[in-house]
Amino acid sequence: MRSVDEMFLWNCWYAAAWEHELEGGVKLARTFLEKPVVIYQGDSGDYVALDDRCCHRAAPLSMGRVEGDCIRCMYHGMKYGPDGVCIEIPGQDTIGPNHRVRRYPIVSKGNLLWIWMGDPELADPDEIHDFAPLSDSNWRGFEKESYLHYDANWLLIVDNLADFSHLAFVHTNTLGGSEDYAFVTHPEVDKHDDGFSIVRWSRNDAPAPYHLKVNPDAPAKVDRRNTVRMHTPGLFFMETLFAPVGWNADGDDFEGVKQYRNCQYMTPETRTTTHFFWNYLHNYRLDDPAVSASLQASLLEGFMEDKVIIEAQQKLLEMEDPFAPRGLAGDVSLAHFRRVWEGMIRTERETYPGVERKVGNPLL
Amino acid sequence: MRSVDEMFLWNCWYAAAWEHELEGGVKLARTFLEKPVVIYQGDSGDYVALDDRCCHRAAPLSMGRVEGDCIRCMYHGMKYGPDGVCIEIPGQDTIGPNHRVRRYPIVSKGNLLWIWMGDPELADPDEIHDFAPLSDSNWRGFEKESYLHYDANWLLIVDNLADFSHLAFVHTNTLGGSEDYAFVTHPEVDKHDDGFSIVRWSRNDAPAPYHLKVNPDAPAKVDRRNTVRMHTPGLFFMETLFAPVGWNADGDDFEGVKQYRNCQYMTPETRTTTHFFWNYLHNYRLDDPAVSASLQASLLEGFMEDKVIIEAQQKLLEMEDPFAPRGLAGDVSLAHFRRVWEGMIRTERETYPGVERKVGNPLL
Amino acid sequence: MRSVDEMFLWNCWYAAAWEHELEGGVKLARTFLEKPVVIYQGDSGDYVALDDRCCHRAAPLSMGRVEGDCIRCMYHGMKYGPDGVCIEIPGQDTIGPNHRVRRYPIVSKGNLLWIWMGDPELADPDEIHDFAPLSDSNWRGFEKESYLHYDANWLLIVDNLADFSHLAFVHTNTLGGSEDYAFVTHPEVDKHDDGFSIVRWSRNDAPAPYHLKVNPDAPAKVDRRNTVRMHTPGLFFMETLFAPVGWNADGDDFEGVKQYRNCQYMTPETRTTTHFFWNYLHNYRLDDPAVSASLQASLLEGFMEDKVIIEAQQKLLEMEDPFAPRGLAGDVSLAHFRRVWEGMIRTERETYPGVERKVGNPLL
Repeated sequence: MRSVDEMFLWNCWYAAAWEHELEGGVKLARTFLEKPVVIYQGDSGDYVALDDRCCHRAAPLSMGRVEGDCIRCMYHGMKYGPDGVCIEIPGQDTIGPNHRVRRYPIVSKGNLLWIWMGDPELADPDEIHDFAPLSDSNWRGFEKESYLHYDANWLLIVDNLADFSHLAFVHTNTLGGSEDYAFVTHPEVDKHDDGFSIVRWSRNDAPAPYHLKVNPDAPAKVDRRNTVRMHTPGLFFMETLFAPVGWNADGDDFEGVKQYRNCQYMTPETRTTTHFFWNYLHNYRLDDPAVSASLQASLLEGFMEDKVIIEAQQKLLEMEDPFAPRGLAGDVSLAHFRRVWEGMIRTERETYPGVERKVGNPLL
Repeated sequence: MRSVDEMFLWNCWYAAAWEHELEGGVKLARTFLEKPVVIYQGDSGDYVALDDRCCHRAAPLSMGRVEGDCIRCMYHGMKYGPDGVCIEIPGQDTIGPNHRVRRYPIVSKGNLLWIWMGDPELADPDEIHDFAPLSDSNWRGFEKESYLHYDANWLLIVDNLADFSHLAFVHTNTLGGSEDYAFVTHPEVDKHDDGFSIVRWSRNDAPAPYHLKVNPDAPAKVDRRNTVRMHTPGLFFMETLFAPVGWNADGDDFEGVKQYRNCQYMTPETRTTTHFFWNYLHNYRLDDPAVSASLQASLLEGFMEDKVIIEAQQKLLEMEDPFAPRGLAGDVSLAHFRRVWEGMIRTERETYPGVERKVGNPLL
Repeated sequence: MRSVDEMFLWNCWYAAAWEHELEGGVKLARTFLEKPVVIYQGDSGDYVALDDRCCHRAAPLSMGRVEGDCIRCMYHGMKYGPDGVCIEIPGQDTIGPNHRVRRYPIVSKGNLLWIWMGDPELADPDEIHDFAPLSDSNWRGFEKESYLHYDANWLLIVDNLADFSHLAFVHTNTLGGSEDYAFVTHPEVDKHDDGFSIVRWSRNDAPAPYHLKVNPDAPAKVDRRNTVRMHTPGLFFMETLFAPVGWNADGDDFEGVKQYRNCQYMTPETRTTTHFFWNYLHNYRLDDPAVSASLQASLLEGFMEDKVIIEAQQKLLEMEDPFAPRGLAGDVSLAHFRRVWEGMIRTERETYPGVERKVGNPLL
């Protein structure tokens, strides 16, 4: 296992929580990149992310009490502002410059909270990859967006999303359709400096079961197109459409075409566990809540099929018996992503030496 | 994590079990200082503590059979005297000098069994800190004294007991009362070679909820005094009184004064877990069992409030992300205790080099 | 803890599964010697054992699909022949020489599957220790043979079986009878190059409870003889007979003699866990299924008595506190076995250097 220095990228935005996870005054204790964080919404409506350990003796601030935008440790009563600076110590008049906890920049965009685990001075909210459909009224997503916890390294999930031929075998009865998807269709891959994109046509094939569930009158054969964009540090966006067989993708006739937009965000909790956030939006029958409810159930069913395999992979890779992976032609996307990722970590280590040690140190 | 050599003090008495835990012929398997011990009461009434591993193949003697004051391993039938010497091997005539297990001195005092994990020759029962109220008929304690198991290093519990300002925040609705206890009252601390003592007055404040439960007619405001004495290796004694506002503590008029006596004993099980023993005695309405029953329930409720925070601290301190504690003025007691403790361990290592290796070795 | 190199013997046959465990198309995921294996029965009836990790990204083949005698990984659809060679990659025309997984020789004998974890070229099925009663119609065993999983190193189970004096204490009310078995009876031990054998007579003693259950009219006193043969790498065979007191074992009169045949197989799963397979056969009232049903229940009851002690031993031996075992006269068999075992491992390391590294490497 590599050291923590070589595993994580610090200076970037990670998906941290859906807004609805903070509702009702929840003080969310969540670990990112092996660092414990408390997230809460202050009375002003602003979100705050702090080291979850009171600077005194590491008592969890997530068991504390929100007061305005501040939080009070409910062990000995130290009160911190949203910037992590201690502003009150019961029974003590002076507060030293060390009496503070690390603050993590946190920003809400499209119902999702994004956290910056690296040098706060470099955090620019404009760099967050906004997923437009999340705030576009032409698209309808889940009533409450979804979260899953994986007992697996996040790169195994990226691998999964980098080769959709697995739809044929893992998701035959849910998100896939027939095994032709692996045997017949081929991805067109574009490599980017920050990830990859893929277009994959499946023509004249049965519609996917999850689509059929909400469109029981769909024709027996359809053309299906998945357009994927994967960004570091684990942001996945996909456009999916089901169209009449022979549909002209270059034209502007969308008669009979049904579309979906999908986002999936992977954030390392630890080297062996991952936070996974996702939504799946549609652009038809927008006034019918049953559509998104069905899609949420179907997608969850499919993602659980992935989860059982990916978590099994993690266990099999953790065994002492060494394993050397053998490449396939379909690995072009995942191999490129891992190269890009290694390069980014190397660059960060050169550009910001010791960044991973500065994190969590409130004095730096 | 420091090595076991640097963590534990060996040549001292530790609380091991309440007498009632041994009732009914229980052979108690309990680990102290990372060494497995079996404790039982022989037919003579004497208590015996031995290495819980039969010298043959480490089968647990705690699954054995008590015969008189002896114990027989129920794997191959080896029988040990209360001194740990093997006195019978079925089917074998000779018994070698190595056929024995380590014996730990164990002594009962005030319903509590005390064990000596170091060099047996140095064990002097007179050094046990007897807590007088436990055997004083003017005080009534629990019907069965209490035990808790902590998933935390014992020093985190000492820290907790070293600063009662936490009553204001952790125990507001149980053992504390108002947050004034942290903001207004101040401890008078005395440092000792073997620990510390603290007197803390809380004047003209609401009586603590646990006291009010058994004294529903208590006045709305009282003077409260906590007098604490903490000894190495983790022995805590406290006198608590609730008196009419303005009561003269130097006089001899105890009209309207209600008093409590509290002992808490922390014994390391391992470097990350602790045995915790306690009793809470009162000196009024001694013929009413409801008082101590209520106090036991109230105190347990309060101690569970501590436990959840302390065990969270332990987990947060075990994370790879380093943590550097920041001192508060209220840390004077705990900082002194840790200094005393480090000094004692250093001294023991110099005076009895290798003591921790001799323990558990029946030949030394 | 020693390294994996020093712990396991590779070039030998290990019990892997009862045939009935594979019924119904089960793809059994089972770890041997810390290597993950999938076992399945192909449509031809042949059994197949492969590395449970697809060579692509370590997805579990045990979650795959059997096709004829082949198995298809249900992640991206790679299909492997029973020799572990990949014969199909969906969407890819060429298959490289590295696209294969390790195959383990596996052979069925007497309803039991045997696996060879070492160099496949050395695997000779004739070396499997066949236990004749398993395929002899004069003996009746369990309807479905038994399996137990131990949280203990397999040698602790060998130790257990090497000294039957434990019947007196562990199994008094199940497989033993009286404590005389330890005090009075004595084993005659023969040492072999590959293990040991023991004959132990218990004369004029109460019949064992498990025997009495199926023979309620047995006389109050019987002669009992246990004849044990233990082979490396953990194969235990025993003949047991209960005869009228004074029975002449050298004659040919078996009037009133009831006999049993017992096999027990221990296969290391990991250094601290063990697979345990067993059957117990009788030679009387062969048309009454109640006899073997009772024996299976009785033996399980007895083996659970062993299991609780052996797993406790494992935990006590894993503690940091060092333990040095003290020998008994009764240890002659187990001590000899451990010497034999160490010698075999040493020899294997010299004769086949690196064998443990070659295992699981499909290119060697």
